[in-house]
Amino acid sequence: MQGVNVSLRIIDLRSDTVTHPTDAMRQAMAAAEVGDDVYGEDPTVNRLETLAAEKLGKEAALFVTSGTQGNQLAVLSHARAGEEVILEAESHLFYYEAAAASALAGVQTRPIVGVRGAMHPQEVERAIRGNDIHVPRTALICLENTHNRAGGAIVPLANMRSIYEMARQKNVPVHLDGARIFNAAVALGVDVREFTAYVDTVQICFSKGLSAPVGSLLAGSREFIEQARRWRKRLGGGMRQAGVIAAPAILALTEMVDRLAEDHANAKRLAHSLAEMKGLQLDPALVETNIVIADVSQTGLSAVQLLEKMKREGVLAADFGKSLIRFVTHKDVNQSDVEEAARRVHKALQTVW
Amino acid sequence: MQGVNVSLRIIDLRSDTVTHPTDAMRQAMAAAEVGDDVYGEDPTVNRLETLAAEKLGKEAALFVTSGTQGNQLAVLSHARAGEEVILEAESHLFYYEAAAASALAGVQTRPIVGVRGAMHPQEVERAIRGNDIHVPRTALICLENTHNRAGGAIVPLANMRSIYEMARQKNVPVHLDGARIFNAAVALGVDVREFTAYVDTVQICFSKGLSAPVGSLLAGSREFIEQARRWRKRLGGGMRQAGVIAAPAILALTEMVDRLAEDHANAKRLAHSLAEMKGLQLDPALVETNIVIADVSQTGLSAVQLLEKMKREGVLAADFGKSLIRFVTHKDVNQSDVEEAARRVHKALQTVW
Amino acid sequence: MQGVNVSLRIIDLRSDTVTHPTDAMRQAMAAAEVGDDVYGEDPTVNRLETLAAEKLGKEAALFVTSGTQGNQLAVLSHARAGEEVILEAESHLFYYEAAAASALAGVQTRPIVGVRGAMHPQEVERAIRGNDIHVPRTALICLENTHNRAGGAIVPLANMRSIYEMARQKNVPVHLDGARIFNAAVALGVDVREFTAYVDTVQICFSKGLSAPVGSLLAGSREFIEQARRWRKRLGGGMRQAGVIAAPAILALTEMVDRLAEDHANAKRLAHSLAEMKGLQLDPALVETNIVIADVSQTGLSAVQLLEKMKREGVLAADFGKSLIRFVTHKDVNQSDVEEAARRVHKALQTVW
Amino acid sequence: MQGVNVSLRIIDLRSDTVTHPTDAMRQAMAAAEVGDDVYGEDPTVNRLETLAAEKLGKEAALFVTSGTQGNQLAVLSHARAGEEVILEAESHLFYYEAAAASALAGVQTRPIVGVRGAMHPQEVERAIRGNDIHVPRTALICLENTHNRAGGAIVPLANMRSIYEMARQKNVPVHLDGARIFNAAVALGVDVREFTAYVDTVQICFSKGLSAPVGSLLAGSREFIEQARRWRKRLGGGMRQAGVIAAPAILALTEMVDRLAEDHANAKRLAHSLAEMKGLQLDPALVETNIVIADVSQTGLSAVQLLEKMKREGVLAADFGKSLIRFVTHKDVNQSDVEEAARRVHKALQTVW
Repeated sequence: MQGVNVSLRIIDLRSDTVTHPTDAMRQAMAAAEVGDDVYGEDPTVNRLETLAAEKLGKEAALFVTSGTQGNQLAVLSHARAGEEVILEAESHLFYYEAAAASALAGVQTRPIVGVRGAMHPQEVERAIRGNDIHVPRTALICLENTHNRAGGAIVPLANMRSIYEMARQKNVPVHLDGARIFNAAVALGVDVREFTAYVDTVQICFSKGLSAPVGSLLAGSREFIEQARRWRKRLGGGMRQAGVIAAPAILALTEMVDRLAEDHANAKRLAHSLAEMKGLQLDPALVETNIVIADVSQTGLSAVQLLEKMKREGVLAADFGKSLIRFVTHKDVNQSDVEEAARRVHKALQTVW
Repeated sequence: MQGVNVSLRIIDLRSDTVTHPTDAMRQAMAAAEVGDDVYGEDPTVNRLETLAAEKLGKEAALFVTSGTQGNQLAVLSHARAGEEVILEAESHLFYYEAAAASALAGVQTRPIVGVRGAMHPQEVERAIRGNDIHVPRTALICLENTHNRAGGAIVPLANMRSIYEMARQKNVPVHLDGARIFNAAVALGVDVREFTAYVDTVQICFSKGLSAPVGSLLAGSREFIEQARRWRKRLGGGMRQAGVIAAPAILALTEMVDRLAEDHANAKRLAHSLAEMKGLQLDPALVETNIVIADVSQTGLSAVQLLEKMKREGVLAADFGKSLIRFVTHKDVNQSDVEEAARRVHKALQTVW
Repeated sequence: MQGVNVSLRIIDLRSDTVTHPTDAMRQAMAAAEVGDDVYGEDPTVNRLETLAAEKLGKEAALFVTSGTQGNQLAVLSHARAGEEVILEAESHLFYYEAAAASALAGVQTRPIVGVRGAMHPQEVERAIRGNDIHVPRTALICLENTHNRAGGAIVPLANMRSIYEMARQKNVPVHLDGARIFNAAVALGVDVREFTAYVDTVQICFSKGLSAPVGSLLAGSREFIEQARRWRKRLGGGMRQAGVIAAPAILALTEMVDRLAEDHANAKRLAHSLAEMKGLQLDPALVETNIVIADVSQTGLSAVQLLEKMKREGVLAADFGKSLIRFVTHKDVNQSDVEEAARRVHKALQTVW
Repeated sequence: MQGVNVSLRIIDLRSDTVTHPTDAMRQAMAAAEVGDDVYGEDPTVNRLETLAAEKLGKEAALFVTSGTQGNQLAVLSHARAGEEVILEAESHLFYYEAAAASALAGVQTRPIVGVRGAMHPQEVERAIRGNDIHVPRTALICLENTHNRAGGAIVPLANMRSIYEMARQKNVPVHLDGARIFNAAVALGVDVREFTAYVDTVQICFSKGLSAPVGSLLAGSREFIEQARRWRKRLGGGMRQAGVIAAPAILALTEMVDRLAEDHANAKRLAHSLAEMKGLQLDPALVETNIVIADVSQTGLSAVQLLEKMKREGVLAADFGKSLIRFVTHKDVNQSDVEEAARRVHKALQTVW
């Protein structure tokens, strides 16, 4: 019966960015004490920045409108035109920010292919340039943890430490795209500062698994944040009564971190179910946080084709290359949703066109 | 008695950006229907963009985080590196955006000194470059209306039309920094489209007199907005459940425009009071909207010194150069506040240090 | 008779850039001792840089391919993206370098209208920005002497000293576009170091009045030149056996400076002759060096039209705006050429189309 | 006896850029017919550009000051800020141009690891981006042939054709860094147009094996060259009587190409001699043109250490990484020089410190 799908509740596993704000967040917005943040007078923004800096173990922090903006401000503040930035070949900064680092900061990107998102410290060291007039100065090393395109993989603490210690000897700062660093911390059961101790600056995102409607944050030294604040002005990221979106971000930070464990458990469940389906290839053991990537090449369908069939069954996921589909678990899908999603994917796989 | 000022309610005339959201706006935030705007799925953002495009007489619109971001996206979308942008010598884009147009878009700014913010069409025409290899192509002409540093002056419709018609013949697009264009429309009692008919693209601001907490909007052709959307991504202006701030922006557009007339009346009152004070120089006849600029050089005090004395009396205004002070009226100061502010300024002028 | 002009020797007064190398220069090229300058091993380039640095009173110097390249390297080495450069509104850097300073260095240009090429020191001082987050840092002040579009006017030493002393107090470096600074020095009968003492860095041009085929030079502190050398690499200005063009540049510097006085005398003669012609407006008293600008608006012809008529008579000059024609004297036109040129212009003025 | 080395004639194998101009070139410089090339009036430059365009099978050409400038102009003319350029991971453009492509053009570099300098067409195809707002448009693919860091390897014609045909389908232009493309053509005994037929634009270098003192050239469509000419002006690459260096470049193109075969034979000889030395690792079969790279790690010395010892024996070569030394043969070393160089390297290997 064709009509049946009409009444299906869509289960949206495209990304954790689709999470809606909680009721508490909505109330916090409505009640937020505000001021003009361009003058530094929004008490809620100031509270968020102080709180986050403390939680991340950094001197200062800056509220920004997105993870991309946080990353770009880091590049703009650490580097100048004609310098080079080392980053992982599948990192968000290199892959998904529309070449902004080169467009805005004039830096050359130097990608290094990692293993599950982790670059080998020796390869990073080898990529640091010498002082020859033909070559750019290496201005920055960027890490990403958890690593999105590596399927939510956790870059090991030991890897981060090795890179950081080498980088300090070479006088090269290290930035962390920590849009999902709380997923890593929760999964390992460690304080997030265990990670951020090994970087000079970090960007975290409130609007992914932490479910705030809008916003990210950049943290680092006071001097670095001062620089970033000037560049934020140029990018048009300076907002007025920003307390209305900082308020839910505070809740994201204080109330929503621990529950990421549920997303991880659900991702694991989903991975096990998918792994049993004929034609889908993935190793549930590699699902460390809230992202599951399945290779669909054995189904005879392209990723886009299978996604289309899944959509008809009421399950959304993301195209991650020709034969890869990404599923992300989050607050707005619970255990039974995930089980239902698995059933629907199974059905999609069996349906003829 | 020194203690008396402690209990004073501060009257803040520094800017109309300090306006707090209304209760209706706070409720709208809490109740906003949302989605992921990066996927184009936030219904509230979509509603705002459709509504604003229609009100401005343009094909399409894009919600952005600030007026600076809207202006920069316009430059980035109209021009490319090595081209020239003509703008007024005291315009926000040239004066207050931290050289972003040159830093981000690589364009050269060509300022022209206007009269009360209006550039002479013939001077603009003369500034348009020819096709010689030594000179940059002229890619854009930027107007600002009302003009902030010209004291909220309204750039006349006839001036805009002359520039626009000349520019069309020369194939140069025209952008309007219309952060306060509704002030101009309300002051003249005309539809805002009377102004926007004479520009290709326009940026309007929700968080000034219109009192929304956060946000501006860029409007233009569908193709232009598509370009701007790509550049917004690079600047990190793409937000997720942005409906929470688009909701109050809708109210700003539908409920808050007409009341700008009160701000204008209050500015006029304030101007008349200030003009009578010894040492302050200004012509109330030139106060066309919600901005009043007073020359304090005859007081024997610098602007900064008088502002300090005013602050002790509980009145805040803005330093606008060595001897100039800017007062801006807005929703959060009513007629009696303005009268009280005038009394306090008078007192500040008479107090010895 | 139409054929008569065919046999005319063209008298080319378009620019002093059209000068051909002398025989001595040609022999110097053929005999130049060379090495690979990218390795710093070209002895002729090294000799030129040492010689020029000494003559200009600076620590170090860098041979570059053009005046534009020298100016751009100065901007790139003094300033970074998002900063502001103050310069004269009709200066070569602002007017004729195709917006390169903004395209390459990402700086905002802040033009100030000068009087005969000289900016008022107080206007320059007022244009230096404060430390507000809304405004760019002022990174550089650029002067031009002699000033091309001001008709070869000499910017007075006292003006340069005032600007320099003010700038030092404000910690803003000063760069001189000295493409024709030797014309100024010769005209005033002073050592060129009297001028260069009032700037941090200077660019001089060998291929204008000094008649070398190719090249300019940038001078300043050792650290500044080191920076400039790195940027020269990026612009592709690093050459290999550059000694072949450095050799004539050495002759330009050692043999060709004093003879600029002849060009000045010839310009004066030309100015007096032109000033007597009906329809041409110019004041010979204002001709200080080798450039003469005549206003042709009273002839009823546009500049382009009169140039066309002059060309038929065998005289070339340059279009300098709608009604202005620029004549430049140089080594390859002597006194009798200039007298003949005047006769031909006179004839062109009287001929009907 | 220590003194003996003092009288040694240095054999310089660091690069083919160290070649001195021939006597014929020196005479050509001295006799060159010149004009002002900024006005397009230098007959020798015009002759060079016409000749080179014809030899390369392109519509038009532009004389530039270096290979780096030619490559950068290609990037600036093909791409705009925020777009992506695909290139080989060890190419000159990515490795040795000091991040200029990102600094000047604002493009993101996307390196692909090649095999002996040749990128796999499928990897290139996979790297071309789709039309998503998160990703940059792919604006250009850059090839390098012969490939310097791959030891002068010839990128096969079939590889170039595959990439070109794929690129045309995807509407992405292809640029060739052909600084040493004549080495490839001579080595394969084919017309250089066999290579340039598979690219849209090409840069060739006159001052490497072809022995001219200064200069490179960019060729492509008339429209492309027009764009490049405008960008050359911004980089300061516009020269005046450039005929003096274009004249030897004409000889480079007409007289010096065929003799590259000698350099190749000498490189082969050198490779065989070096391969027999204990501690040096290289495969003479892989020496296709005029570059020999030896791995010195089995000598127990670093590249820098062995270079130092060789220098004492009167042989110069280049450090090419921690354990790699590059030798380049060229016009100024003949067969007996190469044999003598091999003997000296052998001696250096046996000498204790």
